[in-house]
Amino acid sequence: MRHKSFRQMQCPIARGLEHVGEWWSILILRDAFRGVTRFDGFQESLGIAPAMLTKRLGALVQGGLLVRQRYSEHPPRDEYVLTERGRDFRPVLLTLMAFGNRHFPPDRQTVEIVDIATGAAVDPVLVDPRNGNPVAGPGYEIRRTPLESSI
Amino acid sequence: MRHKSFRQMQCPIARGLEHVGEWWSILILRDAFRGVTRFDGFQESLGIAPAMLTKRLGALVQGGLLVRQRYSEHPPRDEYVLTERGRDFRPVLLTLMAFGNRHFPPDRQTVEIVDIATGAAVDPVLVDPRNGNPVAGPGYEIRRTPLESSI
Repeated sequence: MRHKSFRQMQCPIARGLEHVGEWWSILILRDAFRGVTRFDGFQESLGIAPAMLTKRLGALVQGGLLVRQRYSEHPPRDEYVLTERGRDFRPVLLTLMAFGNRHFPPDRQTVEIVDIATGAAVDPVLVDPRNGNPVAGPGYEIRRTPLESSI
Repeated sequence: MRHKSFRQMQCPIARGLEHVGEWWSILILRDAFRGVTRFDGFQESLGIAPAMLTKRLGALVQGGLLVRQRYSEHPPRDEYVLTERGRDFRPVLLTLMAFGNRHFPPDRQTVEIVDIATGAAVDPVLVDPRNGNPVAGPGYEIRRTPLESSI
């Protein structure tokens, strides 16, 4: 078996996934966007084992999506704050949320993107910022692009 | 420890993730969008162990993202084709691709969304289809919404 590690893959999807880590990491990021910053807060939200939470938070710090900041010296306590890179993961969460709402709707309550002015729920669309056309539509394709060698 | 399964979570992000499965499943979907349909094709692309590939393909069929179709009777051979639900996962892949390209660019070649007419690479934006405003901008928020009971 010639197993490729995600790191070896040239695909940006694989590389994005590698750095985010795994499912728990995505849910940790979700909670970070909700304003959770402390270890106990993440644990309470996720019900995740402390050792696993420590590992996933460490991977997100390593990947540059969260930064560790000391908020108490006695006792020493850190909190985890989204970096610019971490905040830029938000569209991935929002499209995943829209997908989940469309196909696997929860039965009691859900979370949605809401237009604050009107209160209307929004099912977002991914567009080309230059002309507003949906990139899933005709006129767009996924293309493999060679990059200039950095050597 | 009170561990919550993803299934128990009311969050559509968690529920979307649960049904997609894990990293390998996302890369299988990526290949399906590239036109791969056969077991051997997925295996060649991913270098994944056959047992794992069988398991992940089964989970995607179970989740309704792929459908199994027989293309040969002698010998019996199936291929895996995207369903409507599977095709609807494309925006998640595209936002993940854009994130990967921005933050963890590959060094030799990459894949990008390209405007076929101009050949220009597109960095897509998630917008409200009613007015074209970016949902990451002011005027939008994530809100927890109670659903009407179905009982």
